[in-house]
Amino acid sequence: MAEQKASVKGVYIADEEGSFVTKALNLVKLAFGGIPGDRHFGWTKKAGVRESMYERGTEIFNRRQLTLVSVEECAQIAEALGVDRVEPEWLGANVCLEGMPDLTEVPAGARFLFDGGAGLLCEGVARPCVHPGKVIAEHFPGREKLAAKFVKAASGRRGLIAVVEREGEVKRGDSVRIVT
Amino acid sequence: MAEQKASVKGVYIADEEGSFVTKALNLVKLAFGGIPGDRHFGWTKKAGVRESMYERGTEIFNRRQLTLVSVEECAQIAEALGVDRVEPEWLGANVCLEGMPDLTEVPAGARFLFDGGAGLLCEGVARPCVHPGKVIAEHFPGREKLAAKFVKAASGRRGLIAVVEREGEVKRGDSVRIVT
Repeated sequence: MAEQKASVKGVYIADEEGSFVTKALNLVKLAFGGIPGDRHFGWTKKAGVRESMYERGTEIFNRRQLTLVSVEECAQIAEALGVDRVEPEWLGANVCLEGMPDLTEVPAGARFLFDGGAGLLCEGVARPCVHPGKVIAEHFPGREKLAAKFVKAASGRRGLIAVVEREGEVKRGDSVRIVT
Repeated sequence: MAEQKASVKGVYIADEEGSFVTKALNLVKLAFGGIPGDRHFGWTKKAGVRESMYERGTEIFNRRQLTLVSVEECAQIAEALGVDRVEPEWLGANVCLEGMPDLTEVPAGARFLFDGGAGLLCEGVARPCVHPGKVIAEHFPGREKLAAKFVKAASGRRGLIAVVEREGEVKRGDSVRIVT
């Protein structure tokens, strides 16, 4: 097993009805199913466009309980878009790590083991969709084309999806071991 | 997305106290958490030797709800061991597929979509451990060294672990689509 180390730059929750945009907290409690109160929380979910192998609305296992991004990959997306920053909240991220310039290359099956004992199991890459592009564009008036450019700019840098393997707290500033 | 097709050679359950060896059924019902009544059924499990990143006995997400093997890879293991057959039951398999000579190469994140609507989500490779080797050796008297040879013989051919993504029945003879 290989091991990398990183730190938690921020933790976030999407708790507003109708919006995937997250907001920063000092800590999140991970429970089986994700972050209680977050829009993606739950053991199961309804199949959507990402699960086109199932009829839309079918109850399926929720493998997208949380989304992880890195400071470095957010900066790479910003550079590709020609803007000064892309915030984790705009991508709907729940955890932003610092020290993982190649976060999106971490394979499914890898573990993220946090100081407080919480553990996440990587379920693969977060495929970029158009919605964060629109949120980014709203922050840069006059740059409406950013929305259309997002998917390509974020390809391979969009971060990971994960499920909670072990319950616990994750705090801003925590260190994390990534075991693959 | 790439798609392969295969068929279900057999379905199996481990429902005897203290044994991982499975027995053949005509059908199994998949529910969230696995196969009800099987020793690996449940949303969560206690961390064991395979999850050495957690203290033994810690409650963790159960990513090993089912094990899949293929007829062809069982034959490859048998050949490597110099015996005439290795049965799926001896490996503790829950589903044996026919038509997947490279089953163990199917990546985490792939879906197994069965006729009856059930869906499995691949969680990665089933790492060979010594126990099935002992069961194999019991079936070939005088070949005690088989137990020690199993881990190497089964490396890369041991099949996959999976979680139930969509509930439903899986029957012997069903066809299955593998979507990666």
